[in-house]
Amino acid sequence: MRIYGDSISGNCLKVKWTADHLRLSYDWIETEVLKAQSRTSAFLALNPAGQVPAVILDDGRPLAQSNAIILHLAEGSDLIPADAYERAKMLEWLFWEQYSHEPYVAVARFQVRFLGKPASELEPRIVERGKAALQRMDEALGGQDFFVGGRLSLADVALVAYTREAGDGGFDLADYPNVRAWIGRVEQALNIAG
Amino acid sequence: MRIYGDSISGNCLKVKWTADHLRLSYDWIETEVLKAQSRTSAFLALNPAGQVPAVILDDGRPLAQSNAIILHLAEGSDLIPADAYERAKMLEWLFWEQYSHEPYVAVARFQVRFLGKPASELEPRIVERGKAALQRMDEALGGQDFFVGGRLSLADVALVAYTREAGDGGFDLADYPNVRAWIGRVEQALNIAG
Repeated sequence: MRIYGDSISGNCLKVKWTADHLRLSYDWIETEVLKAQSRTSAFLALNPAGQVPAVILDDGRPLAQSNAIILHLAEGSDLIPADAYERAKMLEWLFWEQYSHEPYVAVARFQVRFLGKPASELEPRIVERGKAALQRMDEALGGQDFFVGGRLSLADVALVAYTREAGDGGFDLADYPNVRAWIGRVEQALNIAG
Repeated sequence: MRIYGDSISGNCLKVKWTADHLRLSYDWIETEVLKAQSRTSAFLALNPAGQVPAVILDDGRPLAQSNAIILHLAEGSDLIPADAYERAKMLEWLFWEQYSHEPYVAVARFQVRFLGKPASELEPRIVERGKAALQRMDEALGGQDFFVGGRLSLADVALVAYTREAGDGGFDLADYPNVRAWIGRVEQALNIAG
């Protein structure tokens, strides 16, 4: 498998972490978004959406969308709950992550850390919705170690990617103690601490 | 099953259409977003994200996120391809729909049709990205009748929901002839024409 990814992108790291956890072999093709390397004609032939990550599977066929890729790679593994309802809850978190978390928590971090915008100048809507997302995670983690089924699943892999970097976007993880403790657990489980 | 949904919401109609197509029985609980009925404490206990659709499954357990719900309801049916790669491509479209289509095509329609904003006053970013989404669909549908595997799947169910209403947001579907023909096919397959 070839993974086209940008090492600064949480969406791309989800794919790397899933592949590493499952001990899949792959070549990582560094594809820098800030240098528009995901907008070249060669890349657009691979993923017309012009987004990383994208992968070329071992049979030569392409696949895009971080959460679709990790679902495909992890099929049949312990990262996907065997129980149908738990699997559905995991999917609920994956769609929620892309709709209600990433557009705020990841976008804030990108604008502050990589575009140099002061956190105080972020759009208020981004800050408010980012905080709401972290708050919702903190409440969901009250009394449970992981998001679904009491153990690591793709819900944790997907959500940790930008949550662990939220401080770079001006969010204070000290306000979300359950989230902070969970980040440590997930980093340990994925062996990505530090 | 109980479906909490707003009849004006494409995300909610996805769930209704999937249930109808699979001949599942359900009670529809009309939940009007414009009247903040998805923000009551009773509703938030069901779905802390405060979003419709949400369902209560027959065993009493809740589930949210339109695409997670339809994936759960359709498990094992002909709306989900049996082939692993086709299933992954279907998931790619489902995540793309929520990230790169709904926030533009659905939001434009909501602002114009339900908030009364003139289409000419929409944020340019929403219009540009909505057009880009429709253009990408039009290209993907060149030479194929449905998005994945040559037959109706959840990718079509999810994408048709707001695409068929795109005109209400100021988009001109005449610019996307493959999309327009596909809408007709999907409406016929789901028996929702007219």
